[in-house]
This record gives sequence, C-alpha cells and structure tokens, in this order.
Amino acid sequence: MDKKAVVLLSGGIDSTTTLAIAQSQDYDVHAISFRYGQRHTAELDCAKRIAEKMGVNKHVIVDIDLRAFGGSALTDDIDVPKARSDQEIGTGIPVTYVPARNTIFLSFALAWAETLGIDTIFIGINALDYSGYPDCRPEYIEAYQRMANLATKAGVEGNMALNIQTPLISMTKAQIIKTGAELGVDYGLTLSCYDPDDQGRACGACDSCLLRKKGFEDAGIADVTVYKI
Amino acid sequence: MDKKAVVLLSGGIDSTTTLAIAQSQDYDVHAISFRYGQRHTAELDCAKRIAEKMGVNKHVIVDIDLRAFGGSALTDDIDVPKARSDQEIGTGIPVTYVPARNTIFLSFALAWAETLGIDTIFIGINALDYSGYPDCRPEYIEAYQRMANLATKAGVEGNMALNIQTPLISMTKAQIIKTGAELGVDYGLTLSCYDPDDQGRACGACDSCLLRKKGFEDAGIADVTVYKI
Repeated sequence: MDKKAVVLLSGGIDSTTTLAIAQSQDYDVHAISFRYGQRHTAELDCAKRIAEKMGVNKHVIVDIDLRAFGGSALTDDIDVPKARSDQEIGTGIPVTYVPARNTIFLSFALAWAETLGIDTIFIGINALDYSGYPDCRPEYIEAYQRMANLATKAGVEGNMALNIQTPLISMTKAQIIKTGAELGVDYGLTLSCYDPDDQGRACGACDSCLLRKKGFEDAGIADVTVYKI
Repeated sequence: MDKKAVVLLSGGIDSTTTLAIAQSQDYDVHAISFRYGQRHTAELDCAKRIAEKMGVNKHVIVDIDLRAFGGSALTDDIDVPKARSDQEIGTGIPVTYVPARNTIFLSFALAWAETLGIDTIFIGINALDYSGYPDCRPEYIEAYQRMANLATKAGVEGNMALNIQTPLISMTKAQIIKTGAELGVDYGLTLSCYDPDDQGRACGACDSCLLRKKGFEDAGIADVTVYKI
C-alpha cells in the first residue's frame, strides 16, 4: 500500500471506527496510543488487541505524564460523575476534560508522521465531544493543521502538506456505530467507560457509558458490552 | 506577584536570557524543562541550577520519549556535525532538527499553564534558529497561539487569551548575550554544546559552540565557557 496514515487509537468506539474507516480507504495504518496517567489501563489493553486484530502496520504506545500538571477527573483522584441525565451530559466543559490533551496527542502523532514521511493523521473526534471539549471542534483542528504545516521540515520545504482527517466530526454516536458495524468493526473489543472495574468491565453509569448505551439503542444495533449495572 | 508566566528552560543561553527578561518584567516564573532522550543530561543539570539560582517559583522536568520516533542527531546515534563554517551553519534545516519538538514542548507548557490558570508562555526562539528550524519562526508561533486559544477551556470560555512571548525573536546571539549580561545573567551556568564530555564541558566545535563563541566575540563580552578545544 502506498497510502500511509497515523491513526490515534484510544481503544474506544470512536478511534476504532476511525481506524476501520482509514483502512477502508486503503491506508496502511500506523496506530499511536498514549499512557497519560489514566487511572486504569483497561483502555490501552483494548487498543493493543484492536491494533493486533485489525492488522495495523505498527502500534506504538507513548508514555506521557500529565499527572504532574493535574487538572482532570481522568487523571486526578476526584470522582467521575455518575448517572447524569442526557441534558446534563454535554452542557459546559466536563470535569473529565484533560488540559491540552488533544494538542499533546496530535503533537506526538505529528512527530511520528514526520519521522515516517507520512502526511495524513486520522483522529476520531466528533459532534458529541464538540459540546464539551474545546479541542474537539472543527475550527480547532483547522488551526492545528495550519500550525503543523508551519512547524515541519516537510511543510516548510513544500514537499508535503499535512492533513488531519476527522471522518467522525459531524456524526452522532449512532451514525458512528452504524458506520463501524458496516465496516465489520467488533465493538466487543472496545471500551468506553471512564471507570471500569479490575476486570475491565464498564461501570454502566458514567457519561461515556450512557452515551455508548444510547448510541447502540439509537443505531438499532445490539450492544455486546457487559455493564456492571 | 500577580503576573505569572510559564518559561521554557533548556539550560542554554537563549532560554536563560528569556527567563531573566520575564523576571525583569515582574513575572513570577514557572519553569519547564524536558528530558527528551538527549544523549547527555548536562543541559538539564544546568537548567536545574539556573532555576534554583534565579529563584523561580517552581521548576518541573517532563519526561518525553522522542527516541521511539527517531529522526535527529540530538536523539539518535548519528554524528553531530563539527567545525562547519559560518556559511554552512544556518543553511537549510540542520540534521540536529528534532521532529515537531517545539510543538510538543509548547503543548506541555500549554497544559501546565492552563492547569495553573496562567495566560503567558515565554519561549526563547530567535533569528539564528529561524534560518534552520521551521518551528522557530514568528509565523509558526502566531499559528500556535491561534490554535492554543481554540484548544483550551479558558480560551473558549473567553476568560483568558493565551499569549506566547518570544522576546529574542529578532535578536542576534550577540544582542541576546548583551541583554542577558545587562540583566545580570551568569552565563557560566549555561550550556550550549550539542556534544559535551562526561564533565559537562563544551566540545567547542559543534554548530552550537561555534555560534556561542561568535556571539560572545560580537557582543564584546568575555566568554567564561571552558571549551575542550
């Protein structure tokens, strides 16, 4: 395959669907995941299995210690909000927001892409995230791409223009799940939960679990996830 | 002090002068350094001493493993170019270029700044670097700042506009050294060399040593650096 892409892979529904979309467009995928002080590693275990089963060219896990900076429920010891209503979810910026997370992740993806001579990065940000996370909006991605093309040797020498692909950007969770199901994604491999138990089982009550459940319902596709509640 | 800033501190002339400039403007400095797979740690030892002697509020060293990606003389096992002429230095992009390095460094500075509620980041990029490194140019910094203001909670909620200060951007090395000397910087604490020996002594022959020597000569200020040659 001539076409190569770096794909950000968290091990959740969105990044796994994004990986499937990249492969359906004949990209040879180089997957990158991050260990960034998450309180659990279940998601990374999923990412590893997904990368292997979906036959990516290479998968790297980059260590990033965001804990030194604090500032989020996903890395600090403050409680993950549970069982909020749909109305509560997606209003304002959630406490699970990690400062500059996508900016850091994309920077590592950019470094790897430049090293490999790859001009395409796929990231699975989407309309649902849009509501809460500033670094999940299209104008952010456009600004990032512009900056990246001024940052790199390839961009400056005019050999290559970096482009950031966001195929999920305007999709609902249900549309994402339908798209992935059509491409043969095994969502049983993925994890959405912010607060899984020791066996990696989803809590069924955090924002992310609620959005996942609703996504499968709306898509009319059976949810194979085993929830604790 | 009300004014706070995050300052990127490598331990070299430029970042140390930048730190002095920030302090002369009454900023309470939070210094950030990076361990990014450099072949030597002498520079980081300098950064630690500088942060301590110059009385910064806090100094953090963030671990970043860029070696996983390869691509530069500063992190790989290819030779650092020695004893090049002035004409050779600063033409084209040097082999010591690290992919997306400033993009990664600024992303961590941004994450820390956001966590601390700080709206100002100082980075000591300058005209000499401009010639070789794409991510040392003013248009890159402008694009980064624009992206950052779309990335963060504070930027989106309109509470705070992040600004990236580059006080050295249009200075020659001699002007930088004169400025720092007037502010009382002890350049004996700094290290420029890409290839120091075990005792942290500068090689005297790499691009960075040659630019440093010439800078002190042009500034008419005695160079206290002990060079091997």
